[in-house]
Amino acid sequence: MATQNILLLPGDGIGPEVMAEVRRVLAVIEARGVLSLSIDEGLVGGAAYDAHGVAVSDGDVEKAKAADAVLLGAVGGPKWDGVPYEHRPEAGLLRLRKDLELFANLRPAICYPALADSSALKRELVDGLDLMIVRELTGGVYFGEPKEITDLPNGQKRAVDTQVYETYEIERIAKVAFELARVRGGRVTSAEKRNVMKSGLLWNQVVTAIHKSGGYEDVKLDHMLADALGMQLVRAPKEFDVIVTDNLFGDILSDVASMLTGSLGMLPSASLGAEDENGRRKSLYEPVHGSAPDIAGKGIANPLAMIASLAMALKYSLGKPDVADLLDKAISETLGEGLRTGDIWSEGMTKVGTTEMGSAVAKKF
Amino acid sequence: MATQNILLLPGDGIGPEVMAEVRRVLAVIEARGVLSLSIDEGLVGGAAYDAHGVAVSDGDVEKAKAADAVLLGAVGGPKWDGVPYEHRPEAGLLRLRKDLELFANLRPAICYPALADSSALKRELVDGLDLMIVRELTGGVYFGEPKEITDLPNGQKRAVDTQVYETYEIERIAKVAFELARVRGGRVTSAEKRNVMKSGLLWNQVVTAIHKSGGYEDVKLDHMLADALGMQLVRAPKEFDVIVTDNLFGDILSDVASMLTGSLGMLPSASLGAEDENGRRKSLYEPVHGSAPDIAGKGIANPLAMIASLAMALKYSLGKPDVADLLDKAISETLGEGLRTGDIWSEGMTKVGTTEMGSAVAKKF
Ligand SMILES: CC(C)[C@H](C(=O)O)[C@@H](O)C(=O)O
Ligand SMILES: CC(C)[C@H](C(=O)O)[C@@H](O)C(=O)O
Repeated sequence: MATQNILLLPGDGIGPEVMAEVRRVLAVIEARGVLSLSIDEGLVGGAAYDAHGVAVSDGDVEKAKAADAVLLGAVGGPKWDGVPYEHRPEAGLLRLRKDLELFANLRPAICYPALADSSALKRELVDGLDLMIVRELTGGVYFGEPKEITDLPNGQKRAVDTQVYETYEIERIAKVAFELARVRGGRVTSAEKRNVMKSGLLWNQVVTAIHKSGGYEDVKLDHMLADALGMQLVRAPKEFDVIVTDNLFGDILSDVASMLTGSLGMLPSASLGAEDENGRRKSLYEPVHGSAPDIAGKGIANPLAMIASLAMALKYSLGKPDVADLLDKAISETLGEGLRTGDIWSEGMTKVGTTEMGSAVAKKF
Repeated sequence: MATQNILLLPGDGIGPEVMAEVRRVLAVIEARGVLSLSIDEGLVGGAAYDAHGVAVSDGDVEKAKAADAVLLGAVGGPKWDGVPYEHRPEAGLLRLRKDLELFANLRPAICYPALADSSALKRELVDGLDLMIVRELTGGVYFGEPKEITDLPNGQKRAVDTQVYETYEIERIAKVAFELARVRGGRVTSAEKRNVMKSGLLWNQVVTAIHKSGGYEDVKLDHMLADALGMQLVRAPKEFDVIVTDNLFGDILSDVASMLTGSLGMLPSASLGAEDENGRRKSLYEPVHGSAPDIAGKGIANPLAMIASLAMALKYSLGKPDVADLLDKAISETLGEGLRTGDIWSEGMTKVGTTEMGSAVAKKF
């Protein structure tokens, strides 16, 4: 059995706490001899800045490139509000995405049956919800140049960000969406603002073209304006299967979608690069939630999104989709038994802390 | 009593149908001698393109500039999918916003008590909801240059949109938000992506600065990342009072907010310019909903958002806030009596068409 390399980047806030639960689950996996793992750890975000003066060190970027899967906790917090813009915690995450060319961000929004009542939406609208947002992650307004603030002669300032998309960037993310739809519900909804943005117009054209020329016509393709999609997400989320959209729209729409499930602390994400000749792809897995500085260090954070991120790693990078399914099942069953961290707690349920929750999943698994 | 000029631009799809109900209400207002009105009509969107080959004619733009208030129905529809980009229906609306310098877009999200159950959200989360989104409307990625698609040497294409904000643009929209908060709940939440966008960073700095230097410290100011705000809108919308954000975030977030109310067909908007020496400002009022080509011409569209837009015109442009309140009350009462168009109909309610609904409001008013 070949040894696979995993890099853990706990990051800031609740990151280290939830990552500790991933370590617990990894120990079970190793003990069972399911995988042979070499586990390394690095720094990202504020933690990296405090140690090295940068949001991620060159050394850790190299380790991430060499790893079979990177697991990241969360970055950011008020402690680093004053650091120079280029060293802010988020810059570490953005550099990893860019340097590893992780262009495809998969964000499932699943409503766990046990949690359907804790959604803000009416139960019938979210019960059984299972949609996947495929967000482009290395292009658009996140990385386009110019991106700057300049001084104007009149004493005012002028800020510019640039949204750029080239054909190939849209093609490759559309392909990911079509492939995923094939093993899911067979439907893709592409979202942009073609009525206002030229990049939206090109996005629409390229997605339409690749649907035909790429041989994806077995998948049903719809186009929606991003604002209309935002509405439809709230009104009838179960109508969607796979949603493909750009970096910025994906950021907002996936957050809205995650909230629909009533369980932000539950949702994982995968960021994937292109497959190389050997079918290997660089990858990074992280919870959709942030670093939650307000509850950091208290032992009450929900580790399930982080553990579910490990499940995605098992599926997409470590060649163990069956183990991934077992892990997802362990999460569901733990919830089914009534265990809840504070963020998802409701009357009649058993409130537990981070370690208790992680241990319960590890035991069931 | 000075005569006031109103320009009606019914536009496309259901636009003309809902505008007919505004005419009905205007007739009541004139008959009562509340206002002396001169009412003119023009074309915008696909309707203008069909007549003049442009999405709005210079003549109608001039009329709009001269009017005390412009009322617009909706633009767009599949009929014009093939027209050249610069003449697409939306271009007419965008030109009006830009040429009239209507930089402040006010989008209230109100949950009418009679409709609280038709929201996708649980009743307790939206009952009594009353928030106001103040969206910047003449800047950002909607109008920044370059905005183009170019051919690359490799046969691919490259699309660029540019988000630009200057200090003065952020200052003036922030002021509108602070002034509004003062006569509302006293709180402003400013949303951007300062962790990724330079324009978000400048936005944050300028809003913070004007809060202090502009003497608005009686208003409570919070900052949120736009993605986090999207989540919070779904989770706890009643926590907000006034939200101020840029053109593109405002587009999406206001659509999400409108859907929360369970009554998209109910929501008006006002787009306002700067006040001149005489306290006059250019203005345009339109429903938040679109042209709904699928139901156009059937007499079933909900005219309430269009009528509520007239109420906003009475309040912000025609100097009759008291009449505006009466009109809003007439809308509430009509709903209270159980009249519903198809979009908001539920078991036990009386289903009515566009004219019946408009007539009922006009009668109560
Ligand atoms: C932390 C931040 C830079 C990041 C983003 O905007 O992409 C986050 O919101 C996310 O969605 O992963
Ligand atoms: C029709 C379109 C150009 C417009 C916009 O994007 O601003 C609409 O969505 C709106 O919100 O008024």
